[in-house]
Amino acid sequence: MPLVAPTAVYRFSAGTIAETPDLLAVEEPLEIRLGYGPADDRQQRPLAVTMRTPGHDVELALGFLFTEGIVHARGEILSARHCSREETEKGNVIRVELNPDVQLDWARLDRHGITASNCGVCGKTSIDAIRTSCPAPVSGTFRLDSATLRTLPDQLRTQQQAFAHTGGLHAAAFVGANGQLGPVREDIGRHNALDKLLGIAFWNGNVPVARQAVLVSGRIGFELVQKCWMAGVPMLIALGAPSSLAVDLAREAGITLVGFLRSDRFTLYTHPERVLDAELIAR
Amino acid sequence: MPLVAPTAVYRFSAGTIAETPDLLAVEEPLEIRLGYGPADDRQQRPLAVTMRTPGHDVELALGFLFTEGIVHARGEILSARHCSREETEKGNVIRVELNPDVQLDWARLDRHGITASNCGVCGKTSIDAIRTSCPAPVSGTFRLDSATLRTLPDQLRTQQQAFAHTGGLHAAAFVGANGQLGPVREDIGRHNALDKLLGIAFWNGNVPVARQAVLVSGRIGFELVQKCWMAGVPMLIALGAPSSLAVDLAREAGITLVGFLRSDRFTLYTHPERVLDAELIAR
Repeated sequence: MPLVAPTAVYRFSAGTIAETPDLLAVEEPLEIRLGYGPADDRQQRPLAVTMRTPGHDVELALGFLFTEGIVHARGEILSARHCSREETEKGNVIRVELNPDVQLDWARLDRHGITASNCGVCGKTSIDAIRTSCPAPVSGTFRLDSATLRTLPDQLRTQQQAFAHTGGLHAAAFVGANGQLGPVREDIGRHNALDKLLGIAFWNGNVPVARQAVLVSGRIGFELVQKCWMAGVPMLIALGAPSSLAVDLAREAGITLVGFLRSDRFTLYTHPERVLDAELIAR
Repeated sequence: MPLVAPTAVYRFSAGTIAETPDLLAVEEPLEIRLGYGPADDRQQRPLAVTMRTPGHDVELALGFLFTEGIVHARGEILSARHCSREETEKGNVIRVELNPDVQLDWARLDRHGITASNCGVCGKTSIDAIRTSCPAPVSGTFRLDSATLRTLPDQLRTQQQAFAHTGGLHAAAFVGANGQLGPVREDIGRHNALDKLLGIAFWNGNVPVARQAVLVSGRIGFELVQKCWMAGVPMLIALGAPSSLAVDLAREAGITLVGFLRSDRFTLYTHPERVLDAELIAR
């Protein structure tokens, strides 16, 4: 499934307008259906629609269900696949079949709406409902030193397939303690990119994600921190700026928040002790 | 209500880490309640929560209700104000009192969820439901020439209050045919910034917005185009990139889409005839 789509545009530059081919970041709706029956029957209900860039749709759906607190362990899911009637729905429907043991409170899901992955809390109809039932604060021994941190922007730029072509895609990637980038996921919605990434960890049984940081290409809002908390991610690193509530929540969650990362600088907002050079702070 | 909040950070630069004051873009949840009773009674129901930057909350709520197709004319609204119990809710609740003549289909709203303003379609639980009942394609005589277009980035930069301090706020502004910027609204969510702006037009009875363009600081997804279509905006101009679906919808909506705007260049994606120099195209 391509991340970019060709189009024809008129480009104004140096005083003239010329028709020219261009590439766009692909955006399509993805509907997530949830239920107990076989994945191709009618015993399923639509849960949410998110606007996403096609690709890694199953991971997106699983990451969404997990970081929103709807499922908690891989064993709760029997199958997750594209709808078999793809000829009519263009691959934009994922059906998730739950283990019959899983109790779903549809009334609650309907009442609060379900957040969509590119916004996190939207649709939730009560401020009280915003903080999904988060686990204990993240602890553990994960560390990254500042020199390693500063290699990440270049590594991400090398691995991002589509951004350079379109200027329109967010990325999320795992980072090991040695500074090596793991899988990179891209999406037009930053929350989708993170859900695709955390969906890998969920499906592989690697949550809580105690031994890896998460690197994102954009800014950090409340919901990105919330998703990382749900997945037990110890450090969230961004090329962009965090919001006030993102900083507040990261402090509460025990997550180290790094922003404005460049090859020569970065800003530490919370829990600086995970950046080894934090000993410099005392100087 | 401040757009920015102070915090203390550790900033790494030139090989050292120093503790220093910094500013963050403020993010807080806003709950929109809707109903028929007086605005301070209990006959209201929560409709949606969006993460937004405080300020112009009433405009945000009205713009949201209008661009989501829940209300259609100013007369349908009797009042819109912050909850009177602000001491407990910190000004994060807006109560909207509808004219008793307005028919609300709560079952539909609950079933589809309601999109939140920073994501547009999320929560809607069917792909079929994504395209809210949009009006006829936008027509009219609005035009902007390319020289005027190219003044807009500098104008926006001058007027944006908080972005320079935080790197974390989106802006939306009206642009007259003479190229003058009208009101600018800022928010951590791009869709909120646009809702705040279109909420002004809705409340002033200036919809459809036939004689002004809308300028936004970021990228353009499907939902921004959808909101502009609902409000009859003839031209949507962005400093960032549009998505594939944004381009498709703008073409269908009769909206001129301009992206990657800089002082020396821009890209025309749809309906180029509204940029006067489009005659250059024929050369």
